[in-house]
Amino acid sequence: MSEETPLHIRVVLVEPAFEGNVGSVCRAMKNFGFDDLVLVNPCELGNYAKAMASHAQDLLAEATIVGSVEEALEGVNITIGTTGKPGSSMREHVRMPCFSPRELKTMLEDKQGTVALLFGKEDHGLPNEVIERCDVVLTIPASDEYPVMNLSHAVTVVLYELFDATGGDFLLADGEMQEILYQHVEQLLESINYAEHKKDKTTIMIRRILGRAMISPREYFTLMGLIRDIELALARAEGEQDTSWVENN
Amino acid sequence: MSEETPLHIRVVLVEPAFEGNVGSVCRAMKNFGFDDLVLVNPCELGNYAKAMASHAQDLLAEATIVGSVEEALEGVNITIGTTGKPGSSMREHVRMPCFSPRELKTMLEDKQGTVALLFGKEDHGLPNEVIERCDVVLTIPASDEYPVMNLSHAVTVVLYELFDATGGDFLLADGEMQEILYQHVEQLLESINYAEHKKDKTTIMIRRILGRAMISPREYFTLMGLIRDIELALARAEGEQDTSWVENN
Repeated sequence: MSEETPLHIRVVLVEPAFEGNVGSVCRAMKNFGFDDLVLVNPCELGNYAKAMASHAQDLLAEATIVGSVEEALEGVNITIGTTGKPGSSMREHVRMPCFSPRELKTMLEDKQGTVALLFGKEDHGLPNEVIERCDVVLTIPASDEYPVMNLSHAVTVVLYELFDATGGDFLLADGEMQEILYQHVEQLLESINYAEHKKDKTTIMIRRILGRAMISPREYFTLMGLIRDIELALARAEGEQDTSWVENN
Repeated sequence: MSEETPLHIRVVLVEPAFEGNVGSVCRAMKNFGFDDLVLVNPCELGNYAKAMASHAQDLLAEATIVGSVEEALEGVNITIGTTGKPGSSMREHVRMPCFSPRELKTMLEDKQGTVALLFGKEDHGLPNEVIERCDVVLTIPASDEYPVMNLSHAVTVVLYELFDATGGDFLLADGEMQEILYQHVEQLLESINYAEHKKDKTTIMIRRILGRAMISPREYFTLMGLIRDIELALARAEGEQDTSWVENN
């Protein structure tokens, strides 16, 4: 994919443990024309990583190394978390709904912005707290008997699907601003004394809905405005509550 | 893919040189539910192959090892050759036309039989004489800058596409019988004094046409009958030629 397309794909490996896999990922990225690689606390990268990168050693040398997932997501509009272990029912709100690479490609067809693809540690995958923070959860359809793929194989399949995804003119809302929206959702749930045991579940569910909807900046500002209006109304109501509550009863 | 589907997929690695790749291929096969692996003159397979196979060491242990491509194709109906270097124009008859994994999946949707997927040596691919003998040539759409993929990555992408290809009721003609058909085509070209420099090209082109058409046993017998009739008519004509030729001129 060319640098000039409206859609930019960033590959983020979270704590990869085997340098050979990191090199192999570089090769797969170059095979499909991608070049933005961010490594979160990677293992040491030596000669074996270079050997596996083969003719993609430039990508290995230019990879951005950071100390946290948050740093890896700077400038990102939409964060895609990958898992080899999707939820088995819609009740499992953290890992469901789970999309296939082909569905992701369709979702991104008209989009403009930076999309981060997060891949977890070999054989362990992304920790739940990272999956929770993702906008969309993705899994590769595989055998029930042995669904957990080699890290570089998983990256290869997703990039193979996105190879000719060039995007379009639907601008994606800023990722950091979307985080502020989710903070306000949490605050709102606090304000209305939402049942404690449902709080996290509901916040993640709202993220799953807005995540797969992939909102525009305009939609973002409307939602933020709505939440602010609710917060203001609540504050007003609370100021009046002592009297109105008694009066109405 | 289950053993009971009408379509059976065999993965054939021709002279793989790195045991890690063979192990990785086993893992990818098990990830997508395939279990028929044939290795043609592989490298030594030791502990590193096992490590990369991870939970698919059973496939590694049960892989069939043979000494030639012909042996690997026993019982096969259709042979798919893979290449990272397809022809750039339709004039390149050996490697063209070249299909994508998704197109192959569509071609196999209604088919019944055994399909062999051939993958060549790392960084070298299948030699021309093996590609020539394949019925269909397949390439993975990739960057022009660096299209040559890691062996196990290439296998992973093709099996990912074929994961839910179950086949149908269109029975495929026997592969060894199809070879006899191509021998007869060659003989026919000899019989009609076909231009020497076009002979190979035309035989391969006919294989490419019938290969992608994926003929049934009934179609096979009709074509064989037609060739036999032409051969008989030629033989008759040759017997009569000395006189008829002179008489008519």
